[in-house]
Amino acid sequence: MSFSPLIRQLIDALRGLPGVGPKTAQRMALNLLERDRDVARHLAQVLESAMDGVGYCQRCRTLSETDICNICSDPRRDDNVICILQSPADVWAVEQAGGFRGRYFVLKGHLSPIDGRGPDEIGIPALLDSLTGREVAEVILATNPTVEGEATAHYIANLLKPRGIKVSRIAHGVPLGGELEFIDGGTLAHALAGRTPIL
Amino acid sequence: MSFSPLIRQLIDALRGLPGVGPKTAQRMALNLLERDRDVARHLAQVLESAMDGVGYCQRCRTLSETDICNICSDPRRDDNVICILQSPADVWAVEQAGGFRGRYFVLKGHLSPIDGRGPDEIGIPALLDSLTGREVAEVILATNPTVEGEATAHYIANLLKPRGIKVSRIAHGVPLGGELEFIDGGTLAHALAGRTPIL
Ligand SMILES: [Zn+2]
Ligand SMILES: [Zn+2]
Repeated sequence: MSFSPLIRQLIDALRGLPGVGPKTAQRMALNLLERDRDVARHLAQVLESAMDGVGYCQRCRTLSETDICNICSDPRRDDNVICILQSPADVWAVEQAGGFRGRYFVLKGHLSPIDGRGPDEIGIPALLDSLTGREVAEVILATNPTVEGEATAHYIANLLKPRGIKVSRIAHGVPLGGELEFIDGGTLAHALAGRTPIL
Repeated sequence: MSFSPLIRQLIDALRGLPGVGPKTAQRMALNLLERDRDVARHLAQVLESAMDGVGYCQRCRTLSETDICNICSDPRRDDNVICILQSPADVWAVEQAGGFRGRYFVLKGHLSPIDGRGPDEIGIPALLDSLTGREVAEVILATNPTVEGEATAHYIANLLKPRGIKVSRIAHGVPLGGELEFIDGGTLAHALAGRTPIL
């Protein structure tokens, strides 16, 4: 099998995309070269500009191309409720589920001492900073319903309780062991509505 | 749901890839932004250089970044046998199957009068040109085993017979109605070996 170097490189680069195996990458490369060169050039441009232009919201830490994301800058959202999540994908999932009108704070994953990911690594100090001097009626801990997500929720709950903030955990309507971003909107909306106090 | 414009554009551009639906595109976009920015930038560069640098072999018309592809320029290949295929993907498939050591000629698909794709559109004149003044013992017609592929093979056979060239069709070991590029290497090698004279 003798692909020319550029075609080989293209196939290899496409395999870098999540979920793309060798056969799929080969098929994508060929389709782009044979039929969709404009699509490929457009994708190249958009990849560049997205990687350059998309950073993180200074307030909630979700992916954003503006310093303050469009959720944080929306005056119609409720400042009194903050939903804490593990990743920007979870913000998208909760927004897609609908029903939540408060603000967000996005951690960098969950606590994982084995991997050297402690409170500093996942952004707990930034979370505490963001809550300081702010009137907050309730913090909803919506980390994943996994062992690590639960541990992270409890860790945060223990930090916030002494501050007199009402802390709740999303209801265990979410299937145990699952990951938030893959849960259907109905279940997720239900779990948010049925949240229970924690500690 | 409120993706920022650049993220929206990235998701839409990724959907341009063959076989990528909205959920997959969203997941890819997020993964690239959150974890794989270098992968994304590299992919962008490679897409650009492949679209600019990969053209078609002047001799066999397969995808190539050189004027003459590495199969056509390989002196160890047998000039006496030419395998005619519908697409560069089919060249890759036959090469991967192994066992064929001749040359190729790649058509632009199959005849399709309904779509206005006649002999000129699929490159029949270029095929005839390439055969003119050339010593060829045999032409193997390896168009797809579909109705259109069969019709295209017969059309070409009728043109070549008067020139006194031995024309064969790959054996119908290939499943009828299938597309060559998806057939496993063993079947394909077998079908090539068991080719039968046509007309
Ligand atoms: Zn924000
Ligand atoms: Zn060639």
